Amino acid sequence: MAINKKYIIGIDIGGSKINAVIFYDGKVFKKAKIQTPQKNRDYFLEALEALVIKLIRDLGDKKISGIGCGVAGVLDLKSGIILNAPNLQFLNNFNIKNWLSKKFNCDVKIDNDARCFTRGEFLFGAGKGYKNIVGITLGTGIGGGIIINGKMFYGASSAAGELGHMMMSFDKDWEFFAIKQTKNLEKYLGIGLANIVNILDPEIIIFGGGAAHMLKSLLAEAKKIMNKFIISPKSKKNVKILFGKLGENAGAIGAAALFYE
Amino acid sequence: MAINKKYIIGIDIGGSKINAVIFYDGKVFKKAKIQTPQKNRDYFLEALEALVIKLIRDLGDKKISGIGCGVAGVLDLKSGIILNAPNLQFLNNFNIKNWLSKKFNCDVKIDNDARCFTRGEFLFGAGKGYKNIVGITLGTGIGGGIIINGKMFYGASSAAGELGHMMMSFDKDWEFFAIKQTKNLEKYLGIGLANIVNILDPEIIIFGGGAAHMLKSLLAEAKKIMNKFIISPKSKKNVKILFGKLGENAGAIGAAALFYE
Repeated sequence: MAINKKYIIGIDIGGSKINAVIFYDGKVFKKAKIQTPQKNRDYFLEALEALVIKLIRDLGDKKISGIGCGVAGVLDLKSGIILNAPNLQFLNNFNIKNWLSKKFNCDVKIDNDARCFTRGEFLFGAGKGYKNIVGITLGTGIGGGIIINGKMFYGASSAAGELGHMMMSFDKDWEFFAIKQTKNLEKYLGIGLANIVNILDPEIIIFGGGAAHMLKSLLAEAKKIMNKFIISPKSKKNVKILFGKLGENAGAIGAAALFYE
Repeated sequence: MAINKKYIIGIDIGGSKINAVIFYDGKVFKKAKIQTPQKNRDYFLEALEALVIKLIRDLGDKKISGIGCGVAGVLDLKSGIILNAPNLQFLNNFNIKNWLSKKFNCDVKIDNDARCFTRGEFLFGAGKGYKNIVGITLGTGIGGGIIINGKMFYGASSAAGELGHMMMSFDKDWEFFAIKQTKNLEKYLGIGLANIVNILDPEIIIFGGGAAHMLKSLLAEAKKIMNKFIISPKSKKNVKILFGKLGENAGAIGAAALFYE
């Protein structure tokens, strides 16, 4: 990974919180956060602008070189449009990339929030040194990011890694069984993890997100169930399940790290 | 892909049939097949040896440069050992690579049969020109192969792509619901396909294998269900579902093509 001696802003827009950092040479230089404004788009954008202005206020003559922004939703990465943000519906069809670029007069890159978490942990946290990683965020929903051979895997339409929407019955997905209800959580976590290993065969799986703490007491049992259904003896032996090391700023760091790729 | 003006043998060992080809410069030069001997390992190996001898008998002074061999099971690709072949259990812990290499005195490469199917269709069949492909074989079970950015994706322990073992309840997998019983097949096919798109976001999905024909009448309904559960509007619009073009030799061709990578 290249060293980047520039001041980059990283923003992580989630369903309940917005975390932002100034990132410099692989380290958090400054940070700030707010509750995600839920009222409407104008109110949200006003608060986001104020958050970024607050962050850069004390930089003096140091110039911001870019903004990386993670959003909880399906995005058109090229155009910058938020296509489908289930928990921030007032942002649907909004071009967050153009808006940030015009407001702050710099280069802007965007990505899905779970991919930002995964990139952050891959480059600077629990995933350092590994090349095949699945990152899973447990929050309002379940998000996923996939690193293959040391590179973020986006898929043909930049939509790869939507692990929470893995169907586990005719009409309910992993997200529903593992976050939105509370029965047999360890079983659903276990079979979801087995599916991820059987399909993607990663070296490590890293958990993060605001609800990851709930997993800690369930993980031993979930692992047993996972192991029961992993088909490859080698994968079963080798795969590691870890928790992220970067805390609540992992997503913002991974958003800034869009400029490190 | 490099041109390969050498005579390569491709073998596809499945639960019910063994297909073999001599492959030369991207084309099938000669082919042969037998029913898979089920009696025991010795009987199986005798029949396999006879099949290969029959294929190469008329080559004259043209030399075989290599043998590519696909096996329906979880393999240790490096050592050449068959770790877990549920439908050919007498082959478990057998080193097929060393055996072929000694018998025919040439370089041998092995791979999972579904990856061989996918590689064959990618290089010479329905997947030509695409770079992000999921291949699915419907046979005794369901197998999978994943091509990412024009390269076969193996995962950390060479076990990626075990799509048939995607769990869809606490104790039953996709293979069970979509091959081994006959209720609501189109629904299970549809949600399995949605999962594949939500996780891997391929350009195309290619079906093959001895039971793929059963899918044809169900595909329209399965696609409707798939579309209902794909989370990205772009992926839903873009993903194509195709059938393989190489027929029953796809796997053997893809096994020979291990020497084209």
